[in-house]
Amino acid sequence: MKVFHYRDVKAEDVTEEGAEKIKIRWLIDERIGAENFFMRMFEIEPGGCSPLHSHPWEHEIFILEGEGVVIGKDGERKIGPGDVIFIPPNEIHQLKNTGNSLMRLLCLIPKSGKQTR
Amino acid sequence: MKVFHYRDVKAEDVTEEGAEKIKIRWLIDERIGAENFFMRMFEIEPGGCSPLHSHPWEHEIFILEGEGVVIGKDGERKIGPGDVIFIPPNEIHQLKNTGNSLMRLLCLIPKSGKQTR
Repeated sequence: MKVFHYRDVKAEDVTEEGAEKIKIRWLIDERIGAENFFMRMFEIEPGGCSPLHSHPWEHEIFILEGEGVVIGKDGERKIGPGDVIFIPPNEIHQLKNTGNSLMRLLCLIPKSGKQTR
Repeated sequence: MKVFHYRDVKAEDVTEEGAEKIKIRWLIDERIGAENFFMRMFEIEPGGCSPLHSHPWEHEIFILEGEGVVIGKDGERKIGPGDVIFIPPNEIHQLKNTGNSLMRLLCLIPKSGKQTR
């Protein structure tokens, strides 16, 4: 068993094109023994966003704090703390922080999503 | 894409032997299209606990609120908001709310963990 605080994991800049003011912490991945799926935390500053993109793996997202929008094929939708988002494989998506404070969220992916990042 | 608040998902009693004052919300599972891993929220009242057990699948846990302990093969450890726990397959474990307020946490499992519950 591994127990640690999320702050003990380094926040790294997301460098993919289209990413702005967004950092990632790889909380649970193959380095601590996970074999099926991985837990990451994203921190998006006000005005920041994830890239508008799609990929062959799904996202399972939980919004921890902050206010923003999620953009998908059917337009955009407001999101805030306690919201849950499931993004199926190959669906275009983007997260934006439209509020005045840090947006923090968990975003989990299957193992296949890390091999191609 | 599916977007909803966790409160929109019913909290069900956990009825496994050894479970006390604990409810589960199946936030993301096969019913909304997840094929690889599932997101659940557990809510444990003060004095409540999950069963002391082990099983062939892992847990990826994030503590949202409340104070408690996680019990494993090496004893018990305090946990609180922002803590991350990885429990490998077949390792014995139990979560207890030792505080005075509700303990709320996310616990994700691979698909294989639901087929045998």
